Amino acid sequence: MKFTLQATDKHTQARAGIMETAHGTIETPIFMPVGTAGTVKAVHQHELADDIKAQIILGNTYHLYLRPGLDVLQRAGGLHRFNGWQKPILTDSGGYQVYSLTEVRKIREEGVTFRSHIDGSKHLFTPENVMDTQRVIGADIVMAFDECTPYPCDYQYARRSLDMTHRWLKRCCERFDATEPLYGYEQTLFPIVQGSVYRDLREKSAETIAAFGREGNAIGGLSVGEPAEEMYAMTEVVCRILPAEKPRYLMGVGTPVNILENIALGIDMFDCVMPTRNARNGMLFTRQGIINIKNKKWETDFSPLDAESDLLADRVYSKAYLRHLIRSQEILGAQIASLHNLHFYLWLVGEARAHIVAGDFHEWKSKMVKQLDERL
Amino acid sequence: MKFTLQATDKHTQARAGIMETAHGTIETPIFMPVGTAGTVKAVHQHELADDIKAQIILGNTYHLYLRPGLDVLQRAGGLHRFNGWQKPILTDSGGYQVYSLTEVRKIREEGVTFRSHIDGSKHLFTPENVMDTQRVIGADIVMAFDECTPYPCDYQYARRSLDMTHRWLKRCCERFDATEPLYGYEQTLFPIVQGSVYRDLREKSAETIAAFGREGNAIGGLSVGEPAEEMYAMTEVVCRILPAEKPRYLMGVGTPVNILENIALGIDMFDCVMPTRNARNGMLFTRQGIINIKNKKWETDFSPLDAESDLLADRVYSKAYLRHLIRSQEILGAQIASLHNLHFYLWLVGEARAHIVAGDFHEWKSKMVKQLDERL
Repeated sequence: MKFTLQATDKHTQARAGIMETAHGTIETPIFMPVGTAGTVKAVHQHELADDIKAQIILGNTYHLYLRPGLDVLQRAGGLHRFNGWQKPILTDSGGYQVYSLTEVRKIREEGVTFRSHIDGSKHLFTPENVMDTQRVIGADIVMAFDECTPYPCDYQYARRSLDMTHRWLKRCCERFDATEPLYGYEQTLFPIVQGSVYRDLREKSAETIAAFGREGNAIGGLSVGEPAEEMYAMTEVVCRILPAEKPRYLMGVGTPVNILENIALGIDMFDCVMPTRNARNGMLFTRQGIINIKNKKWETDFSPLDAESDLLADRVYSKAYLRHLIRSQEILGAQIASLHNLHFYLWLVGEARAHIVAGDFHEWKSKMVKQLDERL
Repeated sequence: MKFTLQATDKHTQARAGIMETAHGTIETPIFMPVGTAGTVKAVHQHELADDIKAQIILGNTYHLYLRPGLDVLQRAGGLHRFNGWQKPILTDSGGYQVYSLTEVRKIREEGVTFRSHIDGSKHLFTPENVMDTQRVIGADIVMAFDECTPYPCDYQYARRSLDMTHRWLKRCCERFDATEPLYGYEQTLFPIVQGSVYRDLREKSAETIAAFGREGNAIGGLSVGEPAEEMYAMTEVVCRILPAEKPRYLMGVGTPVNILENIALGIDMFDCVMPTRNARNGMLFTRQGIINIKNKKWETDFSPLDAESDLLADRVYSKAYLRHLIRSQEILGAQIASLHNLHFYLWLVGEARAHIVAGDFHEWKSKMVKQLDERL
């Protein structure tokens, strides 16, 4: 993987870059739609590529490991061949899901035993087998196996967890470097900075992670319930330490405003379920602010979702129609709202990038963050 | 509405025709995807038009009346404007849903009182107000309000119900003819033959209905649980009586084999929830037979759904991937399977038409019905 910085903002830490992977080029800052079980919910692969203009999507190791399972994925020749998405894929390590979705039996030095949320079956994730699993899935970018601490998290727990995450990282790197890609193309491992909301722990973690010298670095354990100001403070601390010449990925973030603020702090990559999950509940993100399409006020608003959008669905479907679909729990409602929100997120990071290159990111961002949180 | 017969098969009663409506031309025999609440479930309008090549879709008066409701539909300027589907629409009368979905309070000469399946609210459908409702919805073809008898149905009940359906038809016609379209384009009313599985009642009903001299005629009360042979027998009896120069619509039918057999008996129009409803449960209809995609045998079948299809989804998604999506209850599974099945149904009636025109429908049909019911 090759990362090239194209432009750095004069007034903020925002950067525009290009990542080159085996499955194509990614222009950063970028948002990665979440395709948990090998599908971005309610969206076709050709819609992701052609309409939303996604450049990379995310898959969840935990979900893919359980279903369809590694045997199927390996026989398919990896996730790209399995789901027909030809552009880059990043997989998380499963850590977050193990802690948030399952009945965790035990976190030990060896790894984590847990029960499947699907059938209750018992499984063990270790740094080593999670690397092997991600070799089988075949993502272009794979994530280290870490412990994602909850919020709030007491200092002693966060400190001890962090040390274990660092020891696990060493094991991840050793296993990853001792194994080869299975499908003939390069994979890259990103380590993850943890440390909850403690500045000294975040600094220590960022230094430790940076010293591993991998090709990109991630920040985890944020957007787990802490106030946005704490998130920004931690991002700032960590970005000051992580090397500028490598991409920085802030995991699981966030709202449109969160994304712009973190771009300003030096983040290059984002993922979040918000645009798709909230879409299915009728929340639309727009340039002017947030729409709850279920509200009565849209009942007879027959204007298009966005008449000026380059997304077909935004031009041909009205607010009143989408409201009807979402209220009636029609699948097409989830489809339209998911298309809209993902298109908007990709538009947002694309605009951010254009303004970084043009040199007026700071002014543009200041204007945008005022309106993006408005309730329409 | 204008209907022109283009070809009639020499060995069967099958016909190829063209219907011209205010929203465009329909080549018969045709299958109409069911868009219950103003959306064909899991399918975008542009996919219906461009990929599936649907020429007309169906809407359900009962569902649309309850949600979004007549006020919204009237303000939108009718269903076409509301959902963005520019081609022809047919609406049923709500009769079938009232009997099958609701707690029916009472069927009287005046009409039917029932409680909404959504919120339990009480409503009255009469022949007159159902015509008014369909004026508001604005479908190109609207259906008479009838009583759809269940199967089995005792003879005396079927006879009395039939007489009421005929009296209701008179009221429907009077109301329809006394009112004008609301949106400036022509609407056409089709009456419905009933009579359960009783030959003499079906004959009487067909004669009565034909005597009304409307521009098309429908057959209802079949595909409600009776054996296929009884359905075909009734279709045959009725088609012998209904005028040849007008389109004949067999409501709620059916499997691919049912459709071919009924085309052979002289039916021009079909609708059924089967291709979409069964799609969501993982049943795929193909030229070679029926696939239950959940079966283990497809787990590692990475071949496309149909490599030779002109539907993109058939070529880019594999059986193993669709199996994974359906088993994981992913929305994309419903999307792909619905596209596949509807595309197949439209392909099937299009092929039937081509063979009627070419003069070899009978041989083609005999070959097809042998394989369409195979379990793959």
